[in-house]
Amino acid sequence: MDQKLQAYIEKLNTLDFSKMYENDFFLTWEKTDDELAAVFTVADALRSLRERNISTKIFNSGLGISLFRDNSTRTRFSFASACDLLGLRVQDLDEGKSQIAHGETVRETANMVSFMADAIGIRDDMYIGKGNAYMHEVVNAVTEGYRTGVLEQKPTLVNLQCDIDHPTQCMADMAHIIHTFDGVENLKGKKIAMTWAYSPSYGKPLSVPQGVIGLMTRFGMDVVLAHPEGYEVMPEVETVAKANAAKSGGSFRKTNSMAEAFKDADIVYPKSWAPFAAMEKRTDLYGKGDQDGIKALEKELLAQNALHRDWCCTEELMKTTRFGNALYLHCLPADINGVSCTDGEVEASVFDRYRTSLYKQASYKPYVIAAMIFLAKVKDPQALLAALEAAGTPRRIG
Amino acid sequence: MDQKLQAYIEKLNTLDFSKMYENDFFLTWEKTDDELAAVFTVADALRSLRERNISTKIFNSGLGISLFRDNSTRTRFSFASACDLLGLRVQDLDEGKSQIAHGETVRETANMVSFMADAIGIRDDMYIGKGNAYMHEVVNAVTEGYRTGVLEQKPTLVNLQCDIDHPTQCMADMAHIIHTFDGVENLKGKKIAMTWAYSPSYGKPLSVPQGVIGLMTRFGMDVVLAHPEGYEVMPEVETVAKANAAKSGGSFRKTNSMAEAFKDADIVYPKSWAPFAAMEKRTDLYGKGDQDGIKALEKELLAQNALHRDWCCTEELMKTTRFGNALYLHCLPADINGVSCTDGEVEASVFDRYRTSLYKQASYKPYVIAAMIFLAKVKDPQALLAALEAAGTPRRIG
Amino acid sequence: MDQKLQAYIEKLNTLDFSKMYENDFFLTWEKTDDELAAVFTVADALRSLRERNISTKIFNSGLGISLFRDNSTRTRFSFASACDLLGLRVQDLDEGKSQIAHGETVRETANMVSFMADAIGIRDDMYIGKGNAYMHEVVNAVTEGYRTGVLEQKPTLVNLQCDIDHPTQCMADMAHIIHTFDGVENLKGKKIAMTWAYSPSYGKPLSVPQGVIGLMTRFGMDVVLAHPEGYEVMPEVETVAKANAAKSGGSFRKTNSMAEAFKDADIVYPKSWAPFAAMEKRTDLYGKGDQDGIKALEKELLAQNALHRDWCCTEELMKTTRFGNALYLHCLPADINGVSCTDGEVEASVFDRYRTSLYKQASYKPYVIAAMIFLAKVKDPQALLAALEAAGTPRRIG
Repeated sequence: MDQKLQAYIEKLNTLDFSKMYENDFFLTWEKTDDELAAVFTVADALRSLRERNISTKIFNSGLGISLFRDNSTRTRFSFASACDLLGLRVQDLDEGKSQIAHGETVRETANMVSFMADAIGIRDDMYIGKGNAYMHEVVNAVTEGYRTGVLEQKPTLVNLQCDIDHPTQCMADMAHIIHTFDGVENLKGKKIAMTWAYSPSYGKPLSVPQGVIGLMTRFGMDVVLAHPEGYEVMPEVETVAKANAAKSGGSFRKTNSMAEAFKDADIVYPKSWAPFAAMEKRTDLYGKGDQDGIKALEKELLAQNALHRDWCCTEELMKTTRFGNALYLHCLPADINGVSCTDGEVEASVFDRYRTSLYKQASYKPYVIAAMIFLAKVKDPQALLAALEAAGTPRRIG
Repeated sequence: MDQKLQAYIEKLNTLDFSKMYENDFFLTWEKTDDELAAVFTVADALRSLRERNISTKIFNSGLGISLFRDNSTRTRFSFASACDLLGLRVQDLDEGKSQIAHGETVRETANMVSFMADAIGIRDDMYIGKGNAYMHEVVNAVTEGYRTGVLEQKPTLVNLQCDIDHPTQCMADMAHIIHTFDGVENLKGKKIAMTWAYSPSYGKPLSVPQGVIGLMTRFGMDVVLAHPEGYEVMPEVETVAKANAAKSGGSFRKTNSMAEAFKDADIVYPKSWAPFAAMEKRTDLYGKGDQDGIKALEKELLAQNALHRDWCCTEELMKTTRFGNALYLHCLPADINGVSCTDGEVEASVFDRYRTSLYKQASYKPYVIAAMIFLAKVKDPQALLAALEAAGTPRRIG
Repeated sequence: MDQKLQAYIEKLNTLDFSKMYENDFFLTWEKTDDELAAVFTVADALRSLRERNISTKIFNSGLGISLFRDNSTRTRFSFASACDLLGLRVQDLDEGKSQIAHGETVRETANMVSFMADAIGIRDDMYIGKGNAYMHEVVNAVTEGYRTGVLEQKPTLVNLQCDIDHPTQCMADMAHIIHTFDGVENLKGKKIAMTWAYSPSYGKPLSVPQGVIGLMTRFGMDVVLAHPEGYEVMPEVETVAKANAAKSGGSFRKTNSMAEAFKDADIVYPKSWAPFAAMEKRTDLYGKGDQDGIKALEKELLAQNALHRDWCCTEELMKTTRFGNALYLHCLPADINGVSCTDGEVEASVFDRYRTSLYKQASYKPYVIAAMIFLAKVKDPQALLAALEAAGTPRRIG
């Protein structure tokens, strides 16, 4: 057997991830450290097999359902790639083309589309208090459907971004960090700055900063959350971050200074987001259909953003990071000064220097998603990984 | 061999369905009793194989084309599931994204998309006199294409709902009835009430009530069609129903009383539909592009509907059915009182009690569609079912 | 081994197409004669295998990305068919559903969607100077992504129509000509008329006439390009055509007389297109967002078209061709007199007589696309074709 694959399998042997089987993936902080480690390890193992042209198809037929309630390129293709890698055919549940508007319930739709579905990926990040709750409704529905014999299998849910967390993004970010720093054991004491940055658009989701502080605090790192006053994230997630840091031997603190956050940082993640309170207000206004209120809020938020144009990842700031070359992260697409906007999240020269690294960061997402599905569907992942390697079916001949 | 599969194969051995090979599925009443029995049996056989994790992929490559001229969730996913189960990739012919508006003929489009297509599923139920005719145009085109050597294979058509019939729905309904009553032989003399019910929307297709009376009259049941005056269905289909009933030893009659229909019924199917005459009128108005006429007709129909708010499947009515627990059917989504509307087709407590049963009813559709394709594509279905079981390729490993 | 397949393999043995491996397909005139011959031969070989029910799947997993910046039926389905034939799953990059509008760069999107992509098919034919350039941007991006380790494979680009050429269409047209005339060696001295024809619509792309004169001049034929004054194509492509003709021993000339072009022609290809100069002007107006200018140009172009209603492929004109039965070609859909418009490109009786031939012409496109991908992905095509035949995996069982 390939030595790398052998090492992955041995790593898995040390972990307890038995509860992931036939389970779902909502929030990273609902998973144990072992379970997260299993995702990273299986992702690496699947990648290793694919890179060596070995098929990882475990489904001969079956659907992977995708539901995107917001535009998406990279997540859509990541989910499609992950499903295809495992042998599932993606079927998009486009609410515009469906009869859902007729008053069909979530419970009903979830079952109606799942008769032959093995996985469901949902992105629903627009309204506070809604996205994650919706995913739970879907999972409850198909679990009940499976229990009552309506469904022959329970499709596993992969949270492709909700109002609270963006687990596939943050796990991919983390996989990139682990590989960049040559192992999770090297992260103790490293400083990571999750900081707000200016963008001329408004209302960007909170799921990335929340997901980052909810996840990165689990590896003994010093996690700093920086933003202007008024750009607070969900308090519940800050509580999670504090508890994580205490447990992992790292730290979590907040600052209203981008400079302070960047100072000596090993990793920086400058990115715009909307204030949590404003997103809550917007959710209410949408609920009431108050168009004038929404427009007024938009105007107010853009004006508020404009006060913080100086929150930009500049070359000057980058110089203040550890050795002047912190790892720069972004979930993409970024608002780049002089490229996609006049003033934005990052200076073009910084972005350009990290472009390859940023693309590699993104490249982990399909494997993270595939690993989540794999762990939910395969009873003995170690045995199956070994069997896939032994079979050695080529992914591509010729 | 598995005993159930053995029994299905033996059942098939007693049936003559040779004409289904390389043929299409338009209307149930164009098929013999043996042919319908073959569909039910193959559907059960495919389900049995899948439930035992045995692959039923018979295509290594090939497209299943879907064309939906009306919004659809469950039928879209049923067709996608059926195609995937057999190994076909679904390619949607989205008329909005195509050049068909440029004046391309049906004959041409049908051939252009079918070079590598093994199945075509079409839903076209909006205009009286159009949907079924369109499907025939498509089949004529690809048959000619195959005959002249343009196509290497003739794709088989599956009618996913037309203006006349909804065969995949009604066959799925029937499969559910057969399983609920433990065999088609137990249906003789059972009373089934296909009845109109109030809905605050208007213009729902006639294909379900027509499909139901055209199919359910073939099994010796007492079929009652109930609706308010003015909600007549196509007379041609009533003629079919009468002939079927006479032949099968059952009965077919009409009433304008929902209570009479429900009385001692073993099965009830309360569902809204538009009057046939109004649908014909609407088809003409659309043909003329008469927007004012369409609006006036809509208003008139809603007013007409509102006179029959009392046509609702209530607990009280359910009590009058056989033992107070008739099998309640619906093609979904239903208009549920207090859930999707104030007054609708069914009381919430009735719907809730039958929810699992309704979902199971729907679960037969993917298998019915797969069976229709299977019987059109496989020369010796019994031998192939046995071969699939013997091969035992897992649908999913792990 | 099948004798036909044997012959195809032997033909390939005589050709040098080594540079197609891991390469892309932009313009036919960027390929050598051997390379084009390899595409025709592999297309025939793949067709021969499929017709004998032998699987040509060379991918076990992998995506084929499609990006259509214009409506499309036949090209969309051809690409889907080709991908499926080889084992790739099509994932459509629908720019409306993506975040590309947010200011994401081409370079970034191209990488983000390609982590597991083996092929990319793009249609971008609307604006002069843009489509082909965009495809190069995409290829440069994924080549760089592959070089820097972001991508595990470089997806191969297939030009599904750009502002300059329509290689999959013209190669399919040529495959049809070769088969109709029983071999490329019989084309020397044959006269082919690529002529403009009247259409009541305006602004049809130039890529077909340009692709035709850029390709058909390579086989020793006498190629005539006919159009009214003012309907010139790109001068660069005329230069290519002239050079090709000189090299192949054929000829290339222009005329402003449809009659002259048809006289004694062996092949006629009458089809509407917009003047190159007008398309350039339109591109500028779109660039400036000048809506009034666009409307004025449209009016002007329709008026200009209307002066040439007599440019129609009539029965009378067809009689003047060689033996009165030249091979009539069209990329479809055609504007047919009395069918899709009052006056158009062709008389209905002419079109009808050639309908089967036209459909066969179109049937080569999926195989041409598949051959382009095959040659870019397979190091030793002859060996793999032989191996596929030897394996004899059925495309469809039953």
